[in-house]
Amino acid sequence: MKLFNNIFMCLSALFLVFFLHGAGMADSETPKQTAKLSPETQACIGCHSSVTPGIVEDWLSSRHSYMTPGEAMKKPPLERRISATDVPEELRGYAVGCYECHSRNPEKHQDNFEHMGFRINVVVSPNDCNTCHPVEVGQYAGSKKANAWKIIMKNPLYHTLVSTIDGLKQVENGKITMKEPSPETLRETCLGCHGTKVEVKGMKTINSSMGEVSVPNLTNWPSQGVGRENPDGSIGSCAACHPRHSFSIKIARQPETCGQCHLDPDVPAYNVFKESKHGNIYDALKSEWNFTNVPWVAGKDFKAPTCAACHVSLITAPDGTVIAERTHDFGARLWVRLFGLIYSHPQPKSGDTTIIRNKDGLPMPTTFLNEPASDFLIDKAEQEKRFDIMKNVCRACHSTQWITGHFDKLQNTIRETNEMTLAATRLMIEAWEKGIEDKSNPFDEQIEKLWIKQWLFYSNSIRYASAMTGAPDYAAFKNGWWELSDNLQKMRDLIDLKELVKNKTIDRKKDN
Amino acid sequence: MKLFNNIFMCLSALFLVFFLHGAGMADSETPKQTAKLSPETQACIGCHSSVTPGIVEDWLSSRHSYMTPGEAMKKPPLERRISATDVPEELRGYAVGCYECHSRNPEKHQDNFEHMGFRINVVVSPNDCNTCHPVEVGQYAGSKKANAWKIIMKNPLYHTLVSTIDGLKQVENGKITMKEPSPETLRETCLGCHGTKVEVKGMKTINSSMGEVSVPNLTNWPSQGVGRENPDGSIGSCAACHPRHSFSIKIARQPETCGQCHLDPDVPAYNVFKESKHGNIYDALKSEWNFTNVPWVAGKDFKAPTCAACHVSLITAPDGTVIAERTHDFGARLWVRLFGLIYSHPQPKSGDTTIIRNKDGLPMPTTFLNEPASDFLIDKAEQEKRFDIMKNVCRACHSTQWITGHFDKLQNTIRETNEMTLAATRLMIEAWEKGIEDKSNPFDEQIEKLWIKQWLFYSNSIRYASAMTGAPDYAAFKNGWWELSDNLQKMRDLIDLKELVKNKTIDRKKDN
Amino acid sequence: MKLFNNIFMCLSALFLVFFLHGAGMADSETPKQTAKLSPETQACIGCHSSVTPGIVEDWLSSRHSYMTPGEAMKKPPLERRISATDVPEELRGYAVGCYECHSRNPEKHQDNFEHMGFRINVVVSPNDCNTCHPVEVGQYAGSKKANAWKIIMKNPLYHTLVSTIDGLKQVENGKITMKEPSPETLRETCLGCHGTKVEVKGMKTINSSMGEVSVPNLTNWPSQGVGRENPDGSIGSCAACHPRHSFSIKIARQPETCGQCHLDPDVPAYNVFKESKHGNIYDALKSEWNFTNVPWVAGKDFKAPTCAACHVSLITAPDGTVIAERTHDFGARLWVRLFGLIYSHPQPKSGDTTIIRNKDGLPMPTTFLNEPASDFLIDKAEQEKRFDIMKNVCRACHSTQWITGHFDKLQNTIRETNEMTLAATRLMIEAWEKGIEDKSNPFDEQIEKLWIKQWLFYSNSIRYASAMTGAPDYAAFKNGWWELSDNLQKMRDLIDLKELVKNKTIDRKKDN
Repeated sequence: MKLFNNIFMCLSALFLVFFLHGAGMADSETPKQTAKLSPETQACIGCHSSVTPGIVEDWLSSRHSYMTPGEAMKKPPLERRISATDVPEELRGYAVGCYECHSRNPEKHQDNFEHMGFRINVVVSPNDCNTCHPVEVGQYAGSKKANAWKIIMKNPLYHTLVSTIDGLKQVENGKITMKEPSPETLRETCLGCHGTKVEVKGMKTINSSMGEVSVPNLTNWPSQGVGRENPDGSIGSCAACHPRHSFSIKIARQPETCGQCHLDPDVPAYNVFKESKHGNIYDALKSEWNFTNVPWVAGKDFKAPTCAACHVSLITAPDGTVIAERTHDFGARLWVRLFGLIYSHPQPKSGDTTIIRNKDGLPMPTTFLNEPASDFLIDKAEQEKRFDIMKNVCRACHSTQWITGHFDKLQNTIRETNEMTLAATRLMIEAWEKGIEDKSNPFDEQIEKLWIKQWLFYSNSIRYASAMTGAPDYAAFKNGWWELSDNLQKMRDLIDLKELVKNKTIDRKKDN
Repeated sequence: MKLFNNIFMCLSALFLVFFLHGAGMADSETPKQTAKLSPETQACIGCHSSVTPGIVEDWLSSRHSYMTPGEAMKKPPLERRISATDVPEELRGYAVGCYECHSRNPEKHQDNFEHMGFRINVVVSPNDCNTCHPVEVGQYAGSKKANAWKIIMKNPLYHTLVSTIDGLKQVENGKITMKEPSPETLRETCLGCHGTKVEVKGMKTINSSMGEVSVPNLTNWPSQGVGRENPDGSIGSCAACHPRHSFSIKIARQPETCGQCHLDPDVPAYNVFKESKHGNIYDALKSEWNFTNVPWVAGKDFKAPTCAACHVSLITAPDGTVIAERTHDFGARLWVRLFGLIYSHPQPKSGDTTIIRNKDGLPMPTTFLNEPASDFLIDKAEQEKRFDIMKNVCRACHSTQWITGHFDKLQNTIRETNEMTLAATRLMIEAWEKGIEDKSNPFDEQIEKLWIKQWLFYSNSIRYASAMTGAPDYAAFKNGWWELSDNLQKMRDLIDLKELVKNKTIDRKKDN
Repeated sequence: MKLFNNIFMCLSALFLVFFLHGAGMADSETPKQTAKLSPETQACIGCHSSVTPGIVEDWLSSRHSYMTPGEAMKKPPLERRISATDVPEELRGYAVGCYECHSRNPEKHQDNFEHMGFRINVVVSPNDCNTCHPVEVGQYAGSKKANAWKIIMKNPLYHTLVSTIDGLKQVENGKITMKEPSPETLRETCLGCHGTKVEVKGMKTINSSMGEVSVPNLTNWPSQGVGRENPDGSIGSCAACHPRHSFSIKIARQPETCGQCHLDPDVPAYNVFKESKHGNIYDALKSEWNFTNVPWVAGKDFKAPTCAACHVSLITAPDGTVIAERTHDFGARLWVRLFGLIYSHPQPKSGDTTIIRNKDGLPMPTTFLNEPASDFLIDKAEQEKRFDIMKNVCRACHSTQWITGHFDKLQNTIRETNEMTLAATRLMIEAWEKGIEDKSNPFDEQIEKLWIKQWLFYSNSIRYASAMTGAPDYAAFKNGWWELSDNLQKMRDLIDLKELVKNKTIDRKKDN
């Protein structure tokens, strides 16, 4: 009964909120009047404006709050932010509010529950966003990002790497032993970016400011990683880049968003961008740029590309010519894969890379000695096609010779960093062959770890510095050639030193 | 005589300055008219507008320049930035100018001196700010921050660590010898953040642009560290967060301020924030936020918390409900201590941690093997109380289940990082027991230094990444689990290698 | 023929562009009307507004687009951004457009070619900018920056260091072999900042969006490093700091610009600035500052200095007093050299440091044991003169005692970091004398590399942290005293360990 009293108080508060608020602000623009709210969303806000006021304010600042799907569908094609042509009739006339999103497809949602008289899903999934944004959801579904949880958890080799890093170690009698990683540690390390598997384990009672409430008990939650496995069976999280309830295109277009995961030392895309000329111009001028326009006009809305400009956004010239079509398959403009694997190689055909098998039967795009698993990788023609899309983005601001010179350099860098990795692989194999380290787990001993650093940290960093036109310090001293060269010496010295320990141990055994 | 001519010229300049200036700007707001200046402050500005024009301009941009204490006291309680109810009568009607602050409590100030006809203190201390801001000064005085100099300089164990790091080393005949650190090096390393002890060593004559001037000779100056020992006997520096003469709340609320000290690799709070979703939203939207409002309204003035929002500021909901009371005791919303010590543990009862004694009689909150010195640490009830304050801040934007899931993860992380530190401690003890390294100074040899890194760099970083909802890369590859696991291997290998050197040396000794 | 059709279409587009555009925006100011364009520049823009629209938009945002040299010359002396008093008559009445810059001094330009009916230089060099900015170009020409390519490529010792780092390594039979670095790798590491040598190797045909075009074939291109060797024989690149076609003073005055190269771990000027109080205030308040005013008014236009304020810009007080004259010789306000060499020492007399010879006949400003090559370094009097210029900048906002205390600390830091480097040098010499490592290349083995880190990473970082008033963490744990002290231990242990390997090898040889 107490709950219903609370709800009544909330409903009265609702009107107050909207009178006081005026309206939200949409990405730097002048405040807009909130569009008509559905009765259900009014009820949600009635309580949540006092229970979780930050969420309501966030939503009030979003385009979802002042634009109905019906209005959005009327925009000229290039300006449309909604790709559906058949939004359900009942949604067209209302703001895209709490209920509109949190009530979709209830039959699919393990996390659907009865809440204050409504059936609500806790987690809104890409499959729900699909109602209005089917093209984006479709593109995303085929990407490596959407498969990010599977890639790291279902590929036995990567899973071994993950477990070796994240597993709790103990020391007993001088010996280091290891357990499997806890879900919590996985969730705040690798799966923080890759996404977790969110399941429902019955209901649980929580103490909210509205009193006791019964809610679905979610595992591995909160979770916003790009490859989240959702309780409705879909994969991905749109909130990874369009966070929470502002669904902001402005945030998504800023490199800090990508920079939550694409970071030093393993994937230093953001760090390299910040050190590049593009990043320099972005930092100096961004306060004057327009991050919300659709389409995004090169030279006018922005003077130097952010991550989104090169990889995702619909870009036009000031005269309206389309420079690049929008894509939410983040690999669609990429012809080579620079990071994450031992050697750089052509992009995989499928976003689900667990299906790849190399010559040695391992689920990797190359062998340890860099023979590509070509059947699973895109061919030259597809590479050229994607390369052309990217070059077209560059062409908005750079001459052809500039672009050619830039990418020739990248090509050379891929070749050289692959060779430097191969050199490290040879040293590691020597350590294995001499019995100094044990290849059964190739990721858990010192020389092996130096080998991992050679590709995962140093080669990757140099390739990023090369690809993103700048960041000479990343390519030189900061996880660059200095480390790449130094690391080979370290491996050499450590093999020689650990050989002494090994022989000593053998000597001692002989003596006994 | 020359001085008085100069002063006369300055006074004439004063009028010019104010006519030209119009008035200062207060934190992004429209320019305000300067409030009435006391005659003494007019005299100060007369010269200093040409001697140190940047200081005068800075002050002109401050609220102190256009708001008198008398006016400030009339604000409604929640909007008040002044906590005194009894500001001395003679201060109420004037702007808070040079003289008002630099002439307080002259009898306590070793650094009080006669300057151009006035008695002036060089250093304005928290005890002076206390005139108008007694609640804030009182809260601060009990914090670890205020005691930061003492904590590091008067705890023999930490002092040994400091000396081992900062002491000048020399190599003679292949042997490394060490001196005590110089005051200058202490001042730009540890004491740069912790604060220095500022004392007066007589007077000295300096050559200013006004000619020769005699001033108190301050030791360890300049100094802005949080635990500065002031020449009036008080501790702390408000300028650490409200820098110099703008006394800006805007600056204090931005994470870059905390980020001068709370930094990678030992205290990566700022680095982790920048990589978190909160930091992402801050970076993308901060130019639209209001950093000066009091109270600070969650969801309206800011869409994601900065350091100040969670730890310091008075926060309200848009409807005026108080979410968190203001506190200048930076530990008041903290139940566990994450960093700086070997193991994470409950917050200490007193900001002066030099009084703590563990079971082994050492001034540390735990033993080397992680037994807590519980008598000196807050109890469960106090922990719960503080935890509730923090959870209330989260609740503004997050559901109860979200918050529970988040902090359960932190709890697990504290447990696991403590275990990983314990594993390293065991290896270090092995090295001590085998005579490979010498425990008399536990901080000065290679295996010991790897042990320090285990807790001071890696465990700390992971805990921050866990506590601040994000930064998976910090928890994984960047000073995270990668390093935490790798470091144990490094310790193991180094023990085995240094044992060879030790035995060889013994062998050689036997041979001789 | 196709080309001419294209050109005709472009020319028609030209009018459209300007009607649609209105005009460009100059650094945050309100849009200005574009000045009168020369017929040649009109022709350029005719095509390039569709071929490279971003370049045209960038230029439209520049002062060059709306201000003619004739108007610029009429400004009062302190406000002038143009130092020529004799700009050629034919340039005075037009905007500084494409043709005005890309057609200068054709007789000197190897890269001059016939393009669409005009003679065009691909690369605009400082010698071309000299037409309107002779004072700046003259100052720059004498700086170390202008000589940056030569310094690193023509000094045999530094060249060895560069080659050792950047050369491709291979492993054959367990042995690491090295090749000379490729031009591409040099270009994206050291020469990314230092600049490349750009030469013309005949013509080549490229596929532009206008069809096939024949252009000069430039080597090592693109290239924007500060010491670029240009195809007209001049040295330097103004675009390094005033990027591309906005020639923005706003960008050049922001620390992110310097921060593309002056970066962790070898030259952490930018990183240290960001952690300093100056950087903190910059981050918090920059959106309110004026980065375009000339002269730049301390306290009014900016509240804390950026790199440019201390090292380059014309700074005045609010009352118009000149605090520091503008200089584009970036060493003109520097009395000591903090980074890049083994020991800190007085600035070199000439920006071309390849002429220096120390007592041992090596091209270095000190010997390995820190005896200065004084004949090539500025003397005490010149040091004092430069020191005074810098102190005058500080004086705008700081008292004399503050400044003295600050620089005394720096002096001590230089002395101590030099001593810490000397200690490491002694250990390296021990390793050489014992035959553990080979001094023929002093940069390619493990103990040698630890020695390099001692000065290039750690001592440098501490000096920066000291010089730039803040960043205690850089001086302590992050590449500071922690590492400086730890590194000596690492060298000591590694000498002892590698001696075991050496003796073992000798033992084995004896056994055979």
